Amino acid sequence: MDKIKVIEIKKSVFADNEEDAQALRKELKERGVYLLNLMSSPGSGKTTTLIRTINILKEKLRIAVMEADIDSDVDAVKIKEATGVESIQLHTGGMCHLDAEMTRQGLDNVGIGNADLVILENVGNLVCPAEFDTGAVCNAMILSVPEGHDKPLKYPLMFSVCDLVVINKTDVLPYFDFDMDKCREYILMRNPRAEIYPVCAKTGEGIEAFARALLQRVTEWKTNN
Amino acid sequence: MDKIKVIEIKKSVFADNEEDAQALRKELKERGVYLLNLMSSPGSGKTTTLIRTINILKEKLRIAVMEADIDSDVDAVKIKEATGVESIQLHTGGMCHLDAEMTRQGLDNVGIGNADLVILENVGNLVCPAEFDTGAVCNAMILSVPEGHDKPLKYPLMFSVCDLVVINKTDVLPYFDFDMDKCREYILMRNPRAEIYPVCAKTGEGIEAFARALLQRVTEWKTNN
Repeated sequence: MDKIKVIEIKKSVFADNEEDAQALRKELKERGVYLLNLMSSPGSGKTTTLIRTINILKEKLRIAVMEADIDSDVDAVKIKEATGVESIQLHTGGMCHLDAEMTRQGLDNVGIGNADLVILENVGNLVCPAEFDTGAVCNAMILSVPEGHDKPLKYPLMFSVCDLVVINKTDVLPYFDFDMDKCREYILMRNPRAEIYPVCAKTGEGIEAFARALLQRVTEWKTNN
Repeated sequence: MDKIKVIEIKKSVFADNEEDAQALRKELKERGVYLLNLMSSPGSGKTTTLIRTINILKEKLRIAVMEADIDSDVDAVKIKEATGVESIQLHTGGMCHLDAEMTRQGLDNVGIGNADLVILENVGNLVCPAEFDTGAVCNAMILSVPEGHDKPLKYPLMFSVCDLVVINKTDVLPYFDFDMDKCREYILMRNPRAEIYPVCAKTGEGIEAFARALLQRVTEWKTNN
């Protein structure tokens, strides 16, 4: 098993997260590092989706990953073993989200000098992470089919702040009462700009389209930089 | 559609949640009201499991339900329509958990004078609700098969504080890499006293055993009261 760097994240001492987030975003822009904040419920398939996506993009972009978790380093190990890209584990010590200062603590340890794209896998939680701007250029989230198509009704803020929404585990659509049309409608109700990508991370179906969209975003952002 | 009472929960002004929780628990004991705090991820099937369970127990116990949600009242409506028991909706206004004072605000509105068992369906979240004692006699949680058997490793506190763990959506076991033995092992590692009930809330399989265990807990508690 690869040795993984584990960072114990400290609680922010700064009061103004908005200000921290803006400062971090500005700094990342200057350094040409695109930060993607990936959120979801526990068990929606963030890590598997990331592995597939990174393996498509890693020849085109220099990628690093920060895996936030309350405990354990299983995800960072998995990412590193399956993709070879730099991957560190951020321990939040029980905290339910990351804010900009905590994200910066991660970035200080992931070696962003060599990265075009840094992906932050946030704590599995549809509530709190949506409330804190991490300084990311783009927020993305994964909703998995077993969770149900009504989630944008119940977790409005999460769906409002995400421009990329992946709908994972489409292979089990036949076994769940999941209405894809309704789901799209509810997501777009929360954020009319949201791009929606149905995928099956287990088989890889649909991941190509998501990876392409992400590559385009990073490329355009770097070009306009 | 039944008219549902919707309570806008206010943030607690009291600092000491432990103290509030103990006071609430003592008061409920005096009044003979068993409070069950039910937690889970979004979309694990809390409401469907509750409906099945209530329909088994409602002839034996007087039951009331408090459905906590950030927004919407779909769950409270569903419970009332499918079981006939009193059901109110608690709006948390974006908050990610309920504490004892917020729970009390709900109890003041649900008419506990007529209830043997009040079930609080907490906000869908594996992190924050575990940190706040609601004053409940018993904490229960639902883990669904699609979320994966590793969740007790990733959300240790949630599994430490729950004495009843329901494993839902067993009907889709063939389509997921879910190891039931490992899951039991991880749950018991967090809480050796935990009772584990695999169920399929959709078909009703296994619910009888869970309902019986809950009935026994309530009956014993009331007898020893």
